[in-house]
Amino acid sequence: MIVKIETSARHIHLKEADFKACFGAEAQLAKEFDLGQSGEFASNQRLKILGANGRFLEARIIGPYRPQTQVEISISDAKILGLAPHLCLSGQLAGSGSVTLEGPLGKIKLKEGLIIAKRHLHLDPATAAAWGLSEGQSVSARLEGERGLTFDNIIVRLKENHHPAIHIDTDEANAAGLTKSTDAELVI
Amino acid sequence: MIVKIETSARHIHLKEADFKACFGAEAQLAKEFDLGQSGEFASNQRLKILGANGRFLEARIIGPYRPQTQVEISISDAKILGLAPHLCLSGQLAGSGSVTLEGPLGKIKLKEGLIIAKRHLHLDPATAAAWGLSEGQSVSARLEGERGLTFDNIIVRLKENHHPAIHIDTDEANAAGLTKSTDAELVI
Repeated sequence: MIVKIETSARHIHLKEADFKACFGAEAQLAKEFDLGQSGEFASNQRLKILGANGRFLEARIIGPYRPQTQVEISISDAKILGLAPHLCLSGQLAGSGSVTLEGPLGKIKLKEGLIIAKRHLHLDPATAAAWGLSEGQSVSARLEGERGLTFDNIIVRLKENHHPAIHIDTDEANAAGLTKSTDAELVI
Repeated sequence: MIVKIETSARHIHLKEADFKACFGAEAQLAKEFDLGQSGEFASNQRLKILGANGRFLEARIIGPYRPQTQVEISISDAKILGLAPHLCLSGQLAGSGSVTLEGPLGKIKLKEGLIIAKRHLHLDPATAAAWGLSEGQSVSARLEGERGLTFDNIIVRLKENHHPAIHIDTDEANAAGLTKSTDAELVI
């Protein structure tokens, strides 16, 4: 089984109130381009993620709004910022890191929401059934190349209209020598 | 077979003339602590690696002097600096990247020497013979954990007095969730 593997750069999902706090009550979250997964889009708006050491990194906002704000960085980013990484699946924010975000018109301080995303495989239920996979299951994926490797513990995440795709972060992409999305061999 | 896996942070090997150009003719390369491989040591002296975009990163100098200066960074570092990564084994610098280094008393501009190190397995010849391995051969190594993975294409490098150890860079360590040296299962 061959599945696409894609790299998630550092990014931010915002709840609407946090967006307004950073960009002003009149501001709108503006789409720049659609992303691979149905309904998700990259905006051209960015926020500063403030470090514990005076440094900051910028990150793009991904829409649409979510019920809870979530900031996804790499361990390399976390070291630059002096922040504590917390590895978890997107949306599972209990115990995740605190972080401060700064926009052109305001700043928000979050008690939790800063995560290192666990690698995961997006699947629609029909493909999952055809492949014999279920929500939360772990699979592996093998990548060829000079930095060839096999990622284990890739968590299956089911959602209607999700195209089959493994998502990894930039540290994982760099470790595998990936420069763009590519095909991986799924090992179940 | 179990072998130790260690992370090489960003660092610089210098030839003596380049050290003097950066630190002055009277300066001495000073040992701070010994490293795992026989004779190698970390100094407390650092140089700035200048990016193509006005940014810089600092890196520690590793002694003793070498015949050719070599700067080892990660792909994450290369992106921060706007420099072209070149994946190769340590010492195999033909075609590697150009880079400028800046010390307290001077700057050197290198036509080549900037590399992303290929992952490799240091072995002494006796252990290599016992394990049936030879110089230049590729092996794999499996790591457990939440970010468990198997690295392929780890190149065997033989040298007298080398302790068995796999060396990976910080992107690879982050991808595997390593925070310190650990044990890996060698797959031949």
